[in-house]
Amino acid sequence: MIEHGIVLDHDRQRRIGFDEAIFAESKSIAQIEAIAAQAIEARTPRLFTRLDAMKYEALANPIRKALDYDPISRTAFVGERTKARGPAQVAIVTGGSSDLHASREAMRTLEYHGQASLHVPDVGVAGLWRLLDRIEEIRPMRVVIVVAGMEGALPSVVAGLVPGLVIALPTSVGYGVAEGGRAALHSALASCAPGLATVNIDNGYGAACAALRALGAGLSSS
Amino acid sequence: MIEHGIVLDHDRQRRIGFDEAIFAESKSIAQIEAIAAQAIEARTPRLFTRLDAMKYEALANPIRKALDYDPISRTAFVGERTKARGPAQVAIVTGGSSDLHASREAMRTLEYHGQASLHVPDVGVAGLWRLLDRIEEIRPMRVVIVVAGMEGALPSVVAGLVPGLVIALPTSVGYGVAEGGRAALHSALASCAPGLATVNIDNGYGAACAALRALGAGLSSS
Amino acid sequence: MIEHGIVLDHDRQRRIGFDEAIFAESKSIAQIEAIAAQAIEARTPRLFTRLDAMKYEALANPIRKALDYDPISRTAFVGERTKARGPAQVAIVTGGSSDLHASREAMRTLEYHGQASLHVPDVGVAGLWRLLDRIEEIRPMRVVIVVAGMEGALPSVVAGLVPGLVIALPTSVGYGVAEGGRAALHSALASCAPGLATVNIDNGYGAACAALRALGAGLSSS
Amino acid sequence: MIEHGIVLDHDRQRRIGFDEAIFAESKSIAQIEAIAAQAIEARTPRLFTRLDAMKYEALANPIRKALDYDPISRTAFVGERTKARGPAQVAIVTGGSSDLHASREAMRTLEYHGQASLHVPDVGVAGLWRLLDRIEEIRPMRVVIVVAGMEGALPSVVAGLVPGLVIALPTSVGYGVAEGGRAALHSALASCAPGLATVNIDNGYGAACAALRALGAGLSSS
Amino acid sequence: MIEHGIVLDHDRQRRIGFDEAIFAESKSIAQIEAIAAQAIEARTPRLFTRLDAMKYEALANPIRKALDYDPISRTAFVGERTKARGPAQVAIVTGGSSDLHASREAMRTLEYHGQASLHVPDVGVAGLWRLLDRIEEIRPMRVVIVVAGMEGALPSVVAGLVPGLVIALPTSVGYGVAEGGRAALHSALASCAPGLATVNIDNGYGAACAALRALGAGLSSS
Amino acid sequence: MIEHGIVLDHDRQRRIGFDEAIFAESKSIAQIEAIAAQAIEARTPRLFTRLDAMKYEALANPIRKALDYDPISRTAFVGERTKARGPAQVAIVTGGSSDLHASREAMRTLEYHGQASLHVPDVGVAGLWRLLDRIEEIRPMRVVIVVAGMEGALPSVVAGLVPGLVIALPTSVGYGVAEGGRAALHSALASCAPGLATVNIDNGYGAACAALRALGAGLSSS
Amino acid sequence: MIEHGIVLDHDRQRRIGFDEAIFAESKSIAQIEAIAAQAIEARTPRLFTRLDAMKYEALANPIRKALDYDPISRTAFVGERTKARGPAQVAIVTGGSSDLHASREAMRTLEYHGQASLHVPDVGVAGLWRLLDRIEEIRPMRVVIVVAGMEGALPSVVAGLVPGLVIALPTSVGYGVAEGGRAALHSALASCAPGLATVNIDNGYGAACAALRALGAGLSSS
Amino acid sequence: MIEHGIVLDHDRQRRIGFDEAIFAESKSIAQIEAIAAQAIEARTPRLFTRLDAMKYEALANPIRKALDYDPISRTAFVGERTKARGPAQVAIVTGGSSDLHASREAMRTLEYHGQASLHVPDVGVAGLWRLLDRIEEIRPMRVVIVVAGMEGALPSVVAGLVPGLVIALPTSVGYGVAEGGRAALHSALASCAPGLATVNIDNGYGAACAALRALGAGLSSS
Repeated sequence: MIEHGIVLDHDRQRRIGFDEAIFAESKSIAQIEAIAAQAIEARTPRLFTRLDAMKYEALANPIRKALDYDPISRTAFVGERTKARGPAQVAIVTGGSSDLHASREAMRTLEYHGQASLHVPDVGVAGLWRLLDRIEEIRPMRVVIVVAGMEGALPSVVAGLVPGLVIALPTSVGYGVAEGGRAALHSALASCAPGLATVNIDNGYGAACAALRALGAGLSSS
Repeated sequence: MIEHGIVLDHDRQRRIGFDEAIFAESKSIAQIEAIAAQAIEARTPRLFTRLDAMKYEALANPIRKALDYDPISRTAFVGERTKARGPAQVAIVTGGSSDLHASREAMRTLEYHGQASLHVPDVGVAGLWRLLDRIEEIRPMRVVIVVAGMEGALPSVVAGLVPGLVIALPTSVGYGVAEGGRAALHSALASCAPGLATVNIDNGYGAACAALRALGAGLSSS
Repeated sequence: MIEHGIVLDHDRQRRIGFDEAIFAESKSIAQIEAIAAQAIEARTPRLFTRLDAMKYEALANPIRKALDYDPISRTAFVGERTKARGPAQVAIVTGGSSDLHASREAMRTLEYHGQASLHVPDVGVAGLWRLLDRIEEIRPMRVVIVVAGMEGALPSVVAGLVPGLVIALPTSVGYGVAEGGRAALHSALASCAPGLATVNIDNGYGAACAALRALGAGLSSS
Repeated sequence: MIEHGIVLDHDRQRRIGFDEAIFAESKSIAQIEAIAAQAIEARTPRLFTRLDAMKYEALANPIRKALDYDPISRTAFVGERTKARGPAQVAIVTGGSSDLHASREAMRTLEYHGQASLHVPDVGVAGLWRLLDRIEEIRPMRVVIVVAGMEGALPSVVAGLVPGLVIALPTSVGYGVAEGGRAALHSALASCAPGLATVNIDNGYGAACAALRALGAGLSSS
Repeated sequence: MIEHGIVLDHDRQRRIGFDEAIFAESKSIAQIEAIAAQAIEARTPRLFTRLDAMKYEALANPIRKALDYDPISRTAFVGERTKARGPAQVAIVTGGSSDLHASREAMRTLEYHGQASLHVPDVGVAGLWRLLDRIEEIRPMRVVIVVAGMEGALPSVVAGLVPGLVIALPTSVGYGVAEGGRAALHSALASCAPGLATVNIDNGYGAACAALRALGAGLSSS
Repeated sequence: MIEHGIVLDHDRQRRIGFDEAIFAESKSIAQIEAIAAQAIEARTPRLFTRLDAMKYEALANPIRKALDYDPISRTAFVGERTKARGPAQVAIVTGGSSDLHASREAMRTLEYHGQASLHVPDVGVAGLWRLLDRIEEIRPMRVVIVVAGMEGALPSVVAGLVPGLVIALPTSVGYGVAEGGRAALHSALASCAPGLATVNIDNGYGAACAALRALGAGLSSS
Repeated sequence: MIEHGIVLDHDRQRRIGFDEAIFAESKSIAQIEAIAAQAIEARTPRLFTRLDAMKYEALANPIRKALDYDPISRTAFVGERTKARGPAQVAIVTGGSSDLHASREAMRTLEYHGQASLHVPDVGVAGLWRLLDRIEEIRPMRVVIVVAGMEGALPSVVAGLVPGLVIALPTSVGYGVAEGGRAALHSALASCAPGLATVNIDNGYGAACAALRALGAGLSSS
Repeated sequence: MIEHGIVLDHDRQRRIGFDEAIFAESKSIAQIEAIAAQAIEARTPRLFTRLDAMKYEALANPIRKALDYDPISRTAFVGERTKARGPAQVAIVTGGSSDLHASREAMRTLEYHGQASLHVPDVGVAGLWRLLDRIEEIRPMRVVIVVAGMEGALPSVVAGLVPGLVIALPTSVGYGVAEGGRAALHSALASCAPGLATVNIDNGYGAACAALRALGAGLSSS
């Protein structure tokens, strides 16, 4: 694929426990098709992120058909993937129904890597009872990904209530000072709750990978 | 006082219901002494804000003695002031014990204007039970000033629980992305809780004045 | 509606005195239709904000017809709403005719909650006489929402002239350093006029909710 | 003075109508003494700006004595200077008594160049009557320098009332979002009043030089 | 026009020497038509700024025909305007051919107000000889508007060479750190050349109005 | 301790697996002494962070003596603490010897909670061999905290080489665009390496707590 | 071409060793056609940058045909150009396949000026072996341009491994805090590797010109 | 030195052509003494940067005496260093006498590595003749480092006049929008002059190292 300027990191699985996902946002149709074709031919699975619906529709027919595509998260899978093993160890807690693009990207990434997850949607702090109603389900989880835009208060509240690793996933939902997601990101970083970690704005893929690292999958295989 | 470049707004009480407070931070000792001396002579009360302890100590003796000074809030009063009328209609809810400089500035401003207030300290969201333990005391208040630094999640949580006017008072407590208080300010502005209003970072005086306006004092006198 | 990732805060009216409005900006057509359909079926009123004209046109016909839609403010109502009670206690003072999207969002939110309001349009500080001509109408109001983009000087001028609660509503009107509304927002926060509170840029809904809180509606019902 | 890394622009007066002022803030005592000594010896006048009191006190005795120093504006003159010619054509209008450092830097620069000026102090918009009381004195001026920190609303209000050239001089007075003066600067730039020009924060020297340019002094000499 | 939320400042000409221009960017077609129709009917001239070609094309036919429209500057005139009086007193010096939108907005505004101007295009500092070739034409001008995007070095260079009032007009031309024009704006504000004034990014109208103020037109008429 | 505005979260250990640390930076001497005295009396351990040397020296003698103080990390312990259990599961990898304040805060927090850690100092990317020399020691760790200021490239490089949870700990070391640590923080957030999580600038305490959460200590006790 | 506001710097080749390239982004079709027509007529070569495909397609036919156009880099050549002399002295090392727009702009600019270059694509730090595999090819180069978006760690790693001039070329690839390329730019500026220079975000043309300067072409001709 | 957390990159000279300099700003006295002592003992030269006068005075006597210290640049050398070879190939052009801290850091770094340099001080663009007077001396240089604070226009002007590699060295000199040096940095990055490279604010060491790389010293030794 060197003609497309692409050198895949085929050694990544061995080093860190999961393979290279393809960030489709700044890639051309031709680059995406080349990567997918190679995966299909080699019968290796491959995950694509940030593949928007227009680009997906523009892919050549056999490749488009080979993809398991989800328009909300803008993710696509090709190839056989690991079956989910055992009960969920990761919860994905979401502030609002506008944040689904990010929470589903995290969920789909976990799914691709064979991890089930528990979903707790639309429990923003403006109506705190919605979170408190479900907190006992969340408490035993080893990892809790908390998805929130606007002021991003939810990750701090959750991190004060549960013992597992809490990963904030700030989203770009909001306007005015919240536009672009910096307000939610800064809330996560400046949290008064101890031990809250964060990833970049809208980076559902990264939050899921951090969860996979915390669960130690790559360690057992190395 | 024109020789000090000062023209007091002696008409303010009539227009908006409270007199002009003196922002001492960028004023010289001579300017502060001139204003205080005039108030003492005219037997009119006067409130000073942002008067740090070093400046206070540097004031001429008779003036320093005439001031009722509080070093935590850096406020000083001179002259007779209105006695508090009736039970508290304003709660001041504070996230952490590091935010006292701001919450006491609000309390002292209310006190200067004859308003009692209810204090609910150190109830940050990392330990949510502390707030929930006291929420029934806060609920009937007409105005709730919520003081918080760091990620500033507390005002959003409170505004989701009580019906009165909630005024966020973000503080500059914190470091890294929280340094200077912008993270807490943006949380207040971007809140998912409806109808949360805010004032500038560390502006306890402004939060108290907004509360006075909401209580309608100036309206009855106009 | 859990299939759309939606958990409405049906308890909000009881807690804070008004029900949950639907922020339509980041929601899909399907999500909006589901919420509206439920409101129509349950015969409960519902307010939608940030519903742009293209999304409105895309809604299924019976739902679109059931909505009372205003394209300037991008708000829609469904269901019976409270009749306005008594004379206006809230003024909405607007700097320029470019700010109507925000001032009308505030007006429509008040209307939805049964509050009349007084409108004072196009009185920016470049022609100060326009404001001074109408200041006596504004002075008796319990709450004054001041809408301004560009340099945002108007809220400070108004707050120096009237005793009621003044809520700045900065708008994103302007270019260069004013683009996005931060200049107007910072003017409101940094105001030399005492007790000026503010909400996020273009947040007409929030300004109206803060006014409702200040008027104490939720308190009487709690 | 090449040993101090200094090459004065001795040709500036001929080109643009006024000589080079010395920005003392980042210069060493030795550099300042060398420049002052040369001016004394050559019997040419020289203006120093941003010369703080500690640096002034540290200067060698004969040089310190030769300087006409003003601690508020941190300016110093050496040598004979032009006598003021005729009545004031420039007004300096100041928002608050905390802004004197900047307004006096402008006044002293004009004085050094032989221009009288009219001073209108402490007329911030929170008490608008103070400005309206004096507006007829300001109206006939060819140039009006308006000095304001915090939200910086005053330059916009003045520019809506007078026909002369209005130069905003934003100051760093304020805290929170106003800290450092960006809020006041952005208000000047984003003004809804037509034809308001601005200079850098706290740049009283620059505002005065722009006024001198507008008065055309350099043109007549060129 | 109150039904469009419009209250024109009909008194502006008397106060500051020029009438109110209409900022069309955030106005609706209906609002623009109403203002133009009134001007046509009243036979008063009117200047529109930021009227993009698509909006212009959408105007009702008789109104569109009555407008003298320039698509580069996005300005339109209606009605008789003042004839230019005497030789040019204002130069407009432009860094690059990408800055024409702003320099023509300034030129058209001057033309509307009866002021001729001298144009010196494409003389950016990367090829300094282009400016030096024409500097003697520029030197006698009472006002020099210097238009520059990217790093915005040109206004500083010009202000070091001519005695008149130099007004920087930063433009949004550029990418990376120059995107939006802040780099050019900050260069103007931080200039080492004395007495450089500036207006907002892309504000050709404002630069021209500042020039008109400096030329004293409004003063003679007041 | 309510007289100091302090309400400790005594329930935190039960909820999330570790007790409340005291952020001493914005607290008064009196507040710190009160908290330490209570811990000594109650024979409960307590961790203090951001206790600078001057504040430490100012503490009353018996309290100062009771503290195990480290001036580099500005941390102090009081009381018996958990002995380290088993071999290190956490590595702390540091870019430069200027970053010790943060890496030692992480190390001391882990030590307080009974966790040994492996230290790999001064392995910044400018001399990559230093990291590669030690990478096999780091690879088996369940958690790797990577401490880096300036451009913050180290966390990305490490996260591409090891399978465990990698937590970036950006520091405020650097000048110019690196001042305050934002450049290093943004590098961590924008990393091309998958699953890198981050905490706030200089937040060694937070990085250690996130590690404790990932190790699941609180889960086993809940 | 003065009717298009264009004054080409025809003297540039003599002064600095290469001719003026045309930045097409903010230029009109008419301006681009005029410049190209003149070059064709005068049989002088000319380089256009930032000529997007839509603008290219809109050019008049004979001009479009005369251009050697590359849509990825958005560059076009007209006229005969220098043949490449000798082996490559410049390497272009690229982090990811999304950065091709910038790396090809650098390559095409070098090609236009007769410089061959070595390409090393897709060697981002997440898979470090890809860079280490090729480092011996890169080491002898006199100039190494390192192209990277997101966190921009690659230029620091390369600058620690090779002795030639390393020029960072940050790209706008990324989202959240990386959006627009500031994170990558700041990494280059704050690098712990000594002597790393940088150019503006996405400025492949500038990186190539800096390389040409370092190779001394203009010196030999001057 | 591992007890001080220090692992020197002893291999750097071989890889990139110059040894590791010690950034003293965030290092303790003990760390600096340990590094200097080792260099003295091993008779290897060593360069220290950002060693402020107070730290220098605090060093143990034998070490302090062994250092060749310059307080303006805050640099120190220990050990024998390379004699300068041949005539200067690098010019250091400085905008103002306030920028000496940075220009001398560059000069001292070149001197430490055996490179003479030509100094052209105080030639800021406000008095352009000062630069034009000396441009013929600068033109033949292979590298030109241009040092400028405030608006940073000088690097663009120089890069338009000379063919060698031009490295901008922005400084933190200035106030208001120039405070901290971002305005000067952005001017360098956004320059309209082709092929201008830049380093971080006040990074004289980095500018000199980039010059050394461009001169190819490390290449000949590798």
